[in-house]
Amino acid sequence: MKTQNILIRLSYDGTGYSGFQFQLNAPSVQEKLEKAIKKIYKVETRVTGAGRTDSGVHATGQAVSFPVPPVVPVENIPLALNSALPRDIVVWSACLVPAEFNARFHARAKTYTYTIDISPYIQVLHRLYAWHCREPLVLKVMEEAAHLFEGQHDFRSFRAAGSSIKNTVRNIKSSRLQYLQDKELLVFQVTGNGFLYKMVRKMAGALVNAGRGRIEPAHIKEALVLPADNKLFPALPAKGLCLKEVFYPPHFTGGEVR
Amino acid sequence: MKTQNILIRLSYDGTGYSGFQFQLNAPSVQEKLEKAIKKIYKVETRVTGAGRTDSGVHATGQAVSFPVPPVVPVENIPLALNSALPRDIVVWSACLVPAEFNARFHARAKTYTYTIDISPYIQVLHRLYAWHCREPLVLKVMEEAAHLFEGQHDFRSFRAAGSSIKNTVRNIKSSRLQYLQDKELLVFQVTGNGFLYKMVRKMAGALVNAGRGRIEPAHIKEALVLPADNKLFPALPAKGLCLKEVFYPPHFTGGEVR
Repeated sequence: MKTQNILIRLSYDGTGYSGFQFQLNAPSVQEKLEKAIKKIYKVETRVTGAGRTDSGVHATGQAVSFPVPPVVPVENIPLALNSALPRDIVVWSACLVPAEFNARFHARAKTYTYTIDISPYIQVLHRLYAWHCREPLVLKVMEEAAHLFEGQHDFRSFRAAGSSIKNTVRNIKSSRLQYLQDKELLVFQVTGNGFLYKMVRKMAGALVNAGRGRIEPAHIKEALVLPADNKLFPALPAKGLCLKEVFYPPHFTGGEVR
Repeated sequence: MKTQNILIRLSYDGTGYSGFQFQLNAPSVQEKLEKAIKKIYKVETRVTGAGRTDSGVHATGQAVSFPVPPVVPVENIPLALNSALPRDIVVWSACLVPAEFNARFHARAKTYTYTIDISPYIQVLHRLYAWHCREPLVLKVMEEAAHLFEGQHDFRSFRAAGSSIKNTVRNIKSSRLQYLQDKELLVFQVTGNGFLYKMVRKMAGALVNAGRGRIEPAHIKEALVLPADNKLFPALPAKGLCLKEVFYPPHFTGGEVR
């Protein structure tokens, strides 16, 4: 039977997963999706996620593509897959894409958020989705520093140690702070054409270190001009990170209803 | 040793609890608090909660009073108790109150919220703290209906069946809808001098039934004028409900730092 190539958008609570990518002996979002597809379509398939989110990282807009036989009307795919998925993974959109489309390689940009709980005591209903910072932060310094990331830079200083990727230049379209809930949650939102391993968590760590006065915003600026592997920018914990949106060239996703 | 009477404010995720009140063979917030107090103060005590939230109901502003020996400086009480509490219960304020103060009997008013997820597919990061309504809702009708509850009324029609309390008149100071997250979460917020058993969840159920056209707002108005036990106003699920604030006469809580 001829197959269709499908692009879905989904949310998941990463708390209970070892990450998006399949792993032996550890629950992954990929494994749950492939099991759900097998249950609905009665075929084995492999899915491709736009972002390989780490253990404990959440998503409200992960994008995943996979080939399946055309046995479920596209508009019914979210409900069909959700009926076979655990409650902490929810598909909320599906569309047909060309056979050559690949959710990972054709992603033109992604938006991530990193949420910091800046209330004096942990906000218990946000404890799984925000990292609590006990120390006082100078928010104005952080706001200014956030914009330093915008533009095309070599982000070598903001990648996990041991990463061996050669091209560390990335283009950040937007990098800013927002406030939610009467300024008790601080959200760092960044959109870029690609991100190195742990890059967003290290950018957030740099901002927090600037906010608590451990580094000057000038250190961030310098690290973007003279990049070097360094430890001034710690990766913040996974639970604050969320993959919010993946952008594709419109000719691939013309049929998508959002 | 002379005892002090303490008022604490706390948040909890009700997901894992059978409610605030102590129960044999089921985890309760009261039990966890009394165990934490015993660990810190080395005394057995009984705590009094302002609102006896049901199984699965959350709180961001529960108020609890209890007598303890004066061995912990009041400003250190939140950190001390939090060190002995599970992570889903967080004390965020403590103050000295007069010996005769009782968190339940002296509560002058309370604010509850009921959160409804009105996005087409469940928002997974809110699934434990909001009830998802699959059906489309006419929000304008609900907004108008929410205000009908304001004022002093007999809320007999909005209590759980089998409840035997005699005085069912309550004074609602404010009752309104708010939107969060680009209108994907609908929050019903109500402040009143007291609430009957399951009253907020039934008020929210009445609003949802008005929003989906099952009842007219006039039915709510009528039920407040000619109260009777009835089934037009179903109690919505516990997980959407949150005790947000408890108000006391200021002469009791003058020393409170918020």
